[in-house]
Amino acid sequence: MKNVIECVPNISEGADARRIAEIVEAVRSAPGVRLLDVSSDAAHNRSVLTMVGDAAGIRAGIEALFIAAVSRIDLTRHKGEHPRMGAVDVVPLIPIRGATMDECVALSREIGAAIGERFGVPVYLYEESASAEGRRNLAEIRKGEFEGFAKKMQEPAWKPDFGPAAPHATAGVVAVGARAPLIAYNINLGTRDLAVADRIARAIRHIGGGFRYVKAMGVELAERGQVQVSINMTNYKKSPLHRVFECVRSEAERHGVAIVGSEIVGLTPADALFAAAEHYLRLESPPGNQVLEMRLLEE
Amino acid sequence: MKNVIECVPNISEGADARRIAEIVEAVRSAPGVRLLDVSSDAAHNRSVLTMVGDAAGIRAGIEALFIAAVSRIDLTRHKGEHPRMGAVDVVPLIPIRGATMDECVALSREIGAAIGERFGVPVYLYEESASAEGRRNLAEIRKGEFEGFAKKMQEPAWKPDFGPAAPHATAGVVAVGARAPLIAYNINLGTRDLAVADRIARAIRHIGGGFRYVKAMGVELAERGQVQVSINMTNYKKSPLHRVFECVRSEAERHGVAIVGSEIVGLTPADALFAAAEHYLRLESPPGNQVLEMRLLEE
Repeated sequence: MKNVIECVPNISEGADARRIAEIVEAVRSAPGVRLLDVSSDAAHNRSVLTMVGDAAGIRAGIEALFIAAVSRIDLTRHKGEHPRMGAVDVVPLIPIRGATMDECVALSREIGAAIGERFGVPVYLYEESASAEGRRNLAEIRKGEFEGFAKKMQEPAWKPDFGPAAPHATAGVVAVGARAPLIAYNINLGTRDLAVADRIARAIRHIGGGFRYVKAMGVELAERGQVQVSINMTNYKKSPLHRVFECVRSEAERHGVAIVGSEIVGLTPADALFAAAEHYLRLESPPGNQVLEMRLLEE
Repeated sequence: MKNVIECVPNISEGADARRIAEIVEAVRSAPGVRLLDVSSDAAHNRSVLTMVGDAAGIRAGIEALFIAAVSRIDLTRHKGEHPRMGAVDVVPLIPIRGATMDECVALSREIGAAIGERFGVPVYLYEESASAEGRRNLAEIRKGEFEGFAKKMQEPAWKPDFGPAAPHATAGVVAVGARAPLIAYNINLGTRDLAVADRIARAIRHIGGGFRYVKAMGVELAERGQVQVSINMTNYKKSPLHRVFECVRSEAERHGVAIVGSEIVGLTPADALFAAAEHYLRLESPPGNQVLEMRLLEE
């Protein structure tokens, strides 16, 4: 597979195992796309599917997902802790390898137009695909949730990018957009003092003056007797793992605290780890092209 | 491709571009194997092919290679700086992903038996496949080279593992065996003093008391005004890149010298770089299974 795009749609069903299985099976049967992971949360009543493919494969996977989900998920009966606005709530498209952000933006427009037309679900383009600055942030789009959208869509500012001018009666609306890969990265500290993790989180995150593409907060790990700096890296190419790790190490040392370990949650692009190896081994060029397995993917 | 085996046969032709191209084309046309690289050295009069595939693919690739090379390379007329004993001189089989060393040993026996029978070329199993301790080392097997083998093979100790009891008239003999992936890794030092690189090389290499799976020597980089510790890592899982790098750093510092950079020459398995990232980021578990591109290779 020469061009690899990742797509991690979130659907508003996380409790009914049979219904989830039917939707998952529909996606799995779509041609040219590979389903790598499904993770469901009953309290959130929400599932996240991770699929990869080239542009054609992702198009087929999302089409299969909508056919299966729109007929099975009824938002008028949906309850869950996580805010939601659609049966398929959000469709993020992520360039991984051999595909550019621009290509993913173009793909999001194609997919958005097809969803609006074929399923009668209004589509908002978000993040890199947003048609207006106020639509970049998914939380802004989702404000009001499913129940509030009939009213929200009457405002000219919330005319959808594709599809009808009113929400689908049971499937609501959906956000589709291209974004950089996101890495969930946690660093565990050898102290029980949550204040230390909080201070470090504030130091490294963008809103506190830290790295531009880092969100972070302190978390207590009671069972381990430790605390954690829980990090969302929204662009690991520009704010890389090793730089954030070294900053956390320096800040922790200032408090007399050591880093006990760290963990990547979920999946990561290989490049994020290669960049760490490149940094610490002082490699004179990025090693990605010299990796046997990466060469295998090139065909 | 679920099981990935690498095979890097060395052939005794490195000067005649047309002959090399014909041999390469034969391998490229074999089913189920992918040719990643060809590198030829005219002075050595030798070429190294890098191919990957599952067991069936590698079998097909080696068969195609022998058909093309035995009919085109005549050792009675071969001259080159590199010692050699066969038209196809050595066939190393390397487990990369989803394949074990034992499977590669079994594959080397299968391939060896087929070569002996079909091409009438005597086969010596070496490294992990060796049938006797004295045959592990390729240099020991190759001693005497093509011209000396008719005599050498009369000694009972040098009866081949497969094939006839005398060398092939023009194609000589071949060594086939499984071995761990080899990484060529160089570390560049900010000094012109070759003695520093030599001392560090002696400190880190196995014969000098250093790491068990490390060979190293000092090399002058005149055009850069630097010296280099040139390293062959014969088992990166047991003597990993980051440990060797840190040892070189410490030894260099003792001489007041800094590491300017490092470089991997040729290809490397992804794991070698993931292990470095795991070490320096203090990851609590090996990250390989969380890498998107690696998951793509699993199918």
